[in-house]
Amino acid sequence: MTYAHRHLLGLEGLSRDEILYLVDTSASFKEISEREIKKVPTLRGKTVVSLFYEPSTRTRTSFEIAAKRLSADFVSISSSGSSAAKGETLLDTARNIAAMRPDCLVIRHAAAGAAHFLAARLACPVVNAGDGAHEHPTQALLDLLTIRDHVGRLSDLRVALVGDVLHSRVARSDAHALRALGAEVRLIGPPTFLPPEAAAWGHVTHDLHAGVRGVDVIIMLRIQRERMGRNYFPSLDEYSRYFCLTRAALAEARKDVVVMHPGPINRGIEIASDVADGPASLIMEQVTNGVAVRMAVLFLLVNRVRATTRETAPAVERPRLRRTAG
Amino acid sequence: MTYAHRHLLGLEGLSRDEILYLVDTSASFKEISEREIKKVPTLRGKTVVSLFYEPSTRTRTSFEIAAKRLSADFVSISSSGSSAAKGETLLDTARNIAAMRPDCLVIRHAAAGAAHFLAARLACPVVNAGDGAHEHPTQALLDLLTIRDHVGRLSDLRVALVGDVLHSRVARSDAHALRALGAEVRLIGPPTFLPPEAAAWGHVTHDLHAGVRGVDVIIMLRIQRERMGRNYFPSLDEYSRYFCLTRAALAEARKDVVVMHPGPINRGIEIASDVADGPASLIMEQVTNGVAVRMAVLFLLVNRVRATTRETAPAVERPRLRRTAG
Amino acid sequence: MTYAHRHLLGLEGLSRDEILYLVDTSASFKEISEREIKKVPTLRGKTVVSLFYEPSTRTRTSFEIAAKRLSADFVSISSSGSSAAKGETLLDTARNIAAMRPDCLVIRHAAAGAAHFLAARLACPVVNAGDGAHEHPTQALLDLLTIRDHVGRLSDLRVALVGDVLHSRVARSDAHALRALGAEVRLIGPPTFLPPEAAAWGHVTHDLHAGVRGVDVIIMLRIQRERMGRNYFPSLDEYSRYFCLTRAALAEARKDVVVMHPGPINRGIEIASDVADGPASLIMEQVTNGVAVRMAVLFLLVNRVRATTRETAPAVERPRLRRTAG
Repeated sequence: MTYAHRHLLGLEGLSRDEILYLVDTSASFKEISEREIKKVPTLRGKTVVSLFYEPSTRTRTSFEIAAKRLSADFVSISSSGSSAAKGETLLDTARNIAAMRPDCLVIRHAAAGAAHFLAARLACPVVNAGDGAHEHPTQALLDLLTIRDHVGRLSDLRVALVGDVLHSRVARSDAHALRALGAEVRLIGPPTFLPPEAAAWGHVTHDLHAGVRGVDVIIMLRIQRERMGRNYFPSLDEYSRYFCLTRAALAEARKDVVVMHPGPINRGIEIASDVADGPASLIMEQVTNGVAVRMAVLFLLVNRVRATTRETAPAVERPRLRRTAG
Repeated sequence: MTYAHRHLLGLEGLSRDEILYLVDTSASFKEISEREIKKVPTLRGKTVVSLFYEPSTRTRTSFEIAAKRLSADFVSISSSGSSAAKGETLLDTARNIAAMRPDCLVIRHAAAGAAHFLAARLACPVVNAGDGAHEHPTQALLDLLTIRDHVGRLSDLRVALVGDVLHSRVARSDAHALRALGAEVRLIGPPTFLPPEAAAWGHVTHDLHAGVRGVDVIIMLRIQRERMGRNYFPSLDEYSRYFCLTRAALAEARKDVVVMHPGPINRGIEIASDVADGPASLIMEQVTNGVAVRMAVLFLLVNRVRATTRETAPAVERPRLRRTAG
Repeated sequence: MTYAHRHLLGLEGLSRDEILYLVDTSASFKEISEREIKKVPTLRGKTVVSLFYEPSTRTRTSFEIAAKRLSADFVSISSSGSSAAKGETLLDTARNIAAMRPDCLVIRHAAAGAAHFLAARLACPVVNAGDGAHEHPTQALLDLLTIRDHVGRLSDLRVALVGDVLHSRVARSDAHALRALGAEVRLIGPPTFLPPEAAAWGHVTHDLHAGVRGVDVIIMLRIQRERMGRNYFPSLDEYSRYFCLTRAALAEARKDVVVMHPGPINRGIEIASDVADGPASLIMEQVTNGVAVRMAVLFLLVNRVRATTRETAPAVERPRLRRTAG
């Protein structure tokens, strides 16, 4: 098996085998971050550029740490202080970056489709680090890796996605991946936060307690406070009364249920503090796994380009991760 | 030949031979960015600091990628979040940075003369990455490199500089370099955008079609939108009617004319989209060449200091660019 | 002797020997920044993350240069563009970073105690780069290193701390360190800038000329302009009339007095330009020494963790700083 695509734009449309291959490759990168010398020379001499049009701490940092642990050079560009302020189009900015010969471009943008749009027009591999409410594929991959680490399997899962599904790119990427893996997906939230297409992804319900009954995994979604009081929901208070994951709600799920959240969490709003910090929570392990996933994705995309360039087509193998001399 | 100066502050006053030496050295760095492993150990253990008081994507990124491909450490300081907000003078900020023993300081500042001012007072080499409306020497060098790549020569050129010459540091640096090379320079724009001294650089005209007649190279200058409607020109509409480089205007030039622009471009204002993306446009190649120019400049300045420090004075030779072990 | 703590949070409570050990180790790192190749492979494969919730040029840059000269990877996170804007707590942000397995976290925060709070809850070493008006230990260490370089000793010192002691974390860290070393400390400033606890640190006076009489060292503190006119002092003019270190005031001190300032300086407010730039001033050497101090601190903390991890407990020795192959 291999990942034969030039870019990673989303999980929709990827096969079960492709997704499992990405998770497997990610798993093989986990131990590097547990070494004393957390660095391999795999991507030495490669340049990874991140272009973020939305604020981000964890995703940008995760990609940066991933790139550096592979010995790549990492150049970070954010919209503040960038040419966007000078009226340049997204494509022109990205083409300019591409002209400096990066080996991979990691993009986050508020517009759904931004990564696809650039991928079709640039000569370098593109990783979608979040495009509007569309997809955030590395987040879904780290969710899968974390589930497999703890539940022990990626088949026969019952998974609840809870909260603002409408605006969540995490929910979309998770739903696509979970369906490809044959999971039973449940979508839980107030009606205004559940888009019509959610019915195609799984069972839709507005009752948190009923919805999580018997599930193996609960993935909480972040509430963006600025959406409250404007059409979607009367108030945070009201929201949390019905949809905050408390210990009482958690008790409805399987005894060994695991709880995840893409972060940053709103304590007491979508998730109770004792649940976020409790034994079922895998939130910190998600973050740790995120670095491994991004290492794997950068490795696969940058090395695939090399293979193509050479006009040979070797299968991208599991990485041989030799240690850097201390 | 060599580049015997400690800094790169501007192209005014440099000799034809010095300019050609800088272009030649830049050309020798181009192929590094086309390698599979885009990195040479030339400046390992050197520290390059950029201090940018104006927003910039491409120039800062270009210097950063250049430094990293030479294996230098690169530290980026921007005015937001810096001591400027605390009322520190430019000189004090720069002296503080210099006290940390960088091997090169790259500065962009809104004040003409800022780089010269610092160069006279600091112990480390200074590269001017744009000082007000004064000079932007690495931009002019990449323009020359791009011209030579495509026109095949840097002598006997007819070059049109079009647009807001008054506020353009690119125009000043280009004009100084082109005159040193003996080119015929034409300056085209509305009277309010042509400073009195332009007459000393070349032929001044306010008619785009007549001005580009028979030229080998057209260098478009960026219009800063915020200047419109305030004394300089009534509106963007009116400006573009007369000075936008369209295919019709382009047809007046030589058949093999090349078109350049320092970016970011304003599509439909100073340059038509079909010209910017058309076969005469070298805009993306300028960006690619920019990395090579900045590699050459950092190489020459940092190595020259080393030579001086050693109390020996070896000529700065063409770089021996051995490959980094993968 | 060794530095047996997991973190560096402040100098209060450290023993004389511990402080001298930190200064000694810092001294041993000074020469690296004077080499032609300013880099040692000591921390290759280690990740240092800075998390700054207050703007900073020199401290952040100093840590970044220090980390890179030790061959560590450095990842910089500032509050702008971070999850703080999304309502995440400091602890959650820091735990997320810690989950990515950094080897050291360098934090600056407006709240006194922020670094201690995190250190008690995270698995990685924490360096306090300034917490509110509480401590700024690396600044005090560089002050001590600079004093020893020039005065020739760290015993039998008479030191004046002048200015806004109340809001100064530098003053607190300096006072704790100087008292541990047995120095005679004098605290000079207007009554509103001298906290009640200052009397426990040394002799308090409101007269600059009398206060600096016979001292070996004067440490000027920065005046934050925004504090003027609001309770603390009527105006900058009035402040500088009484507390600006002029040549006249300097003449009251010992002939070989040295003058220091943590920067950024307000010329003509707390320090006269001719004093700041005069022969007694060590302000630039403080900055140079700052890089050495931060190299030493990162070295000690990151290597101590390694020692602990290995379940062996070798004394942390003076660094063997082998050169990086050029």
